[in-house]
Amino acid sequence: MNVYDLILKTRNGRGLCESEINFLIENYTQGKIPDYQMSAWCMAVYFQGMKADEISYLTMAMANSGMRYDLSSIKGIKIDKHSTGGVGDTTTLIVAPLVAACGVPVAKMSGRGLGHTGGTLDKLSSIPGFTCELSQAQFIEQVNQIKLAIIGQSAEITPADKKLYALRDVTATVDSLPLIASSIMSKKLAAGADGFVLDVKAGVGGFMQNVEQATELAKIMVAIGKQANKPTVAVITNMDQPLGCMVGNALEVQEAILTLSGEGAADLTELCLELASEMLVLAKHSRNYSEARQLLEKKLSAKAGLVKFGEMIAYQGGNAKVIEDLGLLPKAKRQIAIVSQQTGYINSINALEIGKAAMTLGAGRQKQDQSIDLAVGIELKKKVGDYVETGDILGFIHANQESGQVLEQVLSAFSIQPNFTGNQDLIYNKITSL
Amino acid sequence: MNVYDLILKTRNGRGLCESEINFLIENYTQGKIPDYQMSAWCMAVYFQGMKADEISYLTMAMANSGMRYDLSSIKGIKIDKHSTGGVGDTTTLIVAPLVAACGVPVAKMSGRGLGHTGGTLDKLSSIPGFTCELSQAQFIEQVNQIKLAIIGQSAEITPADKKLYALRDVTATVDSLPLIASSIMSKKLAAGADGFVLDVKAGVGGFMQNVEQATELAKIMVAIGKQANKPTVAVITNMDQPLGCMVGNALEVQEAILTLSGEGAADLTELCLELASEMLVLAKHSRNYSEARQLLEKKLSAKAGLVKFGEMIAYQGGNAKVIEDLGLLPKAKRQIAIVSQQTGYINSINALEIGKAAMTLGAGRQKQDQSIDLAVGIELKKKVGDYVETGDILGFIHANQESGQVLEQVLSAFSIQPNFTGNQDLIYNKITSL
Repeated sequence: MNVYDLILKTRNGRGLCESEINFLIENYTQGKIPDYQMSAWCMAVYFQGMKADEISYLTMAMANSGMRYDLSSIKGIKIDKHSTGGVGDTTTLIVAPLVAACGVPVAKMSGRGLGHTGGTLDKLSSIPGFTCELSQAQFIEQVNQIKLAIIGQSAEITPADKKLYALRDVTATVDSLPLIASSIMSKKLAAGADGFVLDVKAGVGGFMQNVEQATELAKIMVAIGKQANKPTVAVITNMDQPLGCMVGNALEVQEAILTLSGEGAADLTELCLELASEMLVLAKHSRNYSEARQLLEKKLSAKAGLVKFGEMIAYQGGNAKVIEDLGLLPKAKRQIAIVSQQTGYINSINALEIGKAAMTLGAGRQKQDQSIDLAVGIELKKKVGDYVETGDILGFIHANQESGQVLEQVLSAFSIQPNFTGNQDLIYNKITSL
Repeated sequence: MNVYDLILKTRNGRGLCESEINFLIENYTQGKIPDYQMSAWCMAVYFQGMKADEISYLTMAMANSGMRYDLSSIKGIKIDKHSTGGVGDTTTLIVAPLVAACGVPVAKMSGRGLGHTGGTLDKLSSIPGFTCELSQAQFIEQVNQIKLAIIGQSAEITPADKKLYALRDVTATVDSLPLIASSIMSKKLAAGADGFVLDVKAGVGGFMQNVEQATELAKIMVAIGKQANKPTVAVITNMDQPLGCMVGNALEVQEAILTLSGEGAADLTELCLELASEMLVLAKHSRNYSEARQLLEKKLSAKAGLVKFGEMIAYQGGNAKVIEDLGLLPKAKRQIAIVSQQTGYINSINALEIGKAAMTLGAGRQKQDQSIDLAVGIELKKKVGDYVETGDILGFIHANQESGQVLEQVLSAFSIQPNFTGNQDLIYNKITSL
């Protein structure tokens, strides 16, 4: 077997078999296949795509390329939730405690990640004292005790994916659905859960720009899950406007606490209930969606998720009083009102522009070693569909520096028209392996 | 400008402008763009193709990447002939002396090359004493004196093409028409001629397998020539069966001498007259094709090309008596008759199989540093269209070693049928920039 023939085969649209994919990934990871052959292969995949079985082989090969978590000593069925990333996506901080409050174990591994705001770990680090640095034994022990823990993912999982992604990133081969799907799912499989609920974002603020592409990606990922005998559900959701009302790290923790108190934004609350319901069904805790949904609504009213969140904070060294006193979270020096210059209906709030503005404020990072400002961000008081008049407050910019430019940027993200012709759909589609 | 954006642009089917192509080639040649980005770009070109102007920019950028020959001190219009390579392609050794015998300067640079037999330089090295190692001054002086010289091409031309070709060779991106065309034409342009006659081979023994692809390649190369203000004509010719009757190095020199004596195979003679006629027209020596053709036929009858060949041999240190005494050429120890096992018409003689057989005998090389056996090869006594009976001699294998396997291979290359339904076309098509 030689790599030239494999590139040629892929280039000519003939699929690779399992042993060929394994050869490619193993040798590439070990440095025996040079980058220049692998990048040519990736570009051939970009144009020719991959068949379903090939994508599964690739995913498994990458999942097996490094350490794999063994969660078997955690009692019960562990369902992982993954989002392809968006602006104001605070769902993990709400869904995980809610599901755990129902008695279903949530052993969540998250990343810091790059983006307009930090990842789940960054957001949590705005809680005084909170740490994600648990040993694997501590992690498992905590989940067995309180059904919930959130830690950072080991750097030792999926080295093949890390190497391949870094190469794709500089060779214009990132946006290939088979490569995206296998990259995401290899990490999920290595993290050891028994099933997955995937939140695939579609819209200007998401990784996939439109619903068709997002649905296509979702189908591929669900097929990978099924092939790996891990029940998987993907929900394709709107990422044209930011999710919820907060974009920023401490701001999103604040929003999570409010939402767990039953005072969250309608869209964020709805999506969290949706994702959590699917998790309860996959975990076989509920017999069906409506049963799961009823249970979750009851738990939400009882603030059981909020209590669980506080419990986790305390277990992981944080100040659990934060759930009652939001003043314990870092706060930006200045709150600048975003004032409407027009009268009419908000037809859209460009999530990408809001995300970029948050980035400019310092809420996100472009490179791994960049530090971020946990306090800053953007707070929306109005959402798509709302009627506003000139002079109304659309929201606030939470800043630690001069931000005239950001204010302009945020204002330009709003499209306000005399009539409403916008899109208020939250959930577009659902794909399931069941 | 950054290379990522250029890969993306090409991948998305948008063309690159001249400065972008120059940036790519200059920085790649200087090692500032890594192989892994360039191979991804090549694969994107494989799938998306390139527009005519892009191909010209790429060709010029590669032509300008190293030394360029200046032939301006050679009197007259210098027309170069190039063949895309085939089995038994002895045309240079016949066309060059014939054209020179008409008074048109032929300043020919050739390579050793890889293939089923050696290149023109290998073939010439079977003439005792002959050298291709002339200085540029000697080369120009000789062409001015006798209108003819053949030397090896400098290793310093088109370093960009060398580097890029080596990369394409290991990343399955060789067979892209824009990349093939620009590779060939960059070398031609760097070699400094005023115009080009291209012999583009189509068939199992050629680089292009079918007439359509060969025609497409020819069109691209002619367009490049035109863009560079170098009149260019491409002739698309049959490479299903070997050209002429000899496949081998000394054997092809022998065939060239016979052809220049008027005793050559019909197809080889015809193709040489064709290519030479086009050269005389491009050199403005003849007003049109038929005038050129008449002149060349007269020169051929008078053996003026043979005399010119002898003159060149003498000038370049070789034993010119070879043109009268073929016994001076190296001769293989054994001549094994290829005997027909069937009766009927020869419908095809697979050029690729004959070429591979010659390679097995030692007539060609697969790697640059491999030595070759100048004496060995295959001699055909029958060609496509001939009627043969069981026991008739189809040709001879000239070998220096055991060759039972080669005999079988050569026999299997012949398809002999009761009726003739084969293809005897020699010239399929002609593309001109005029």
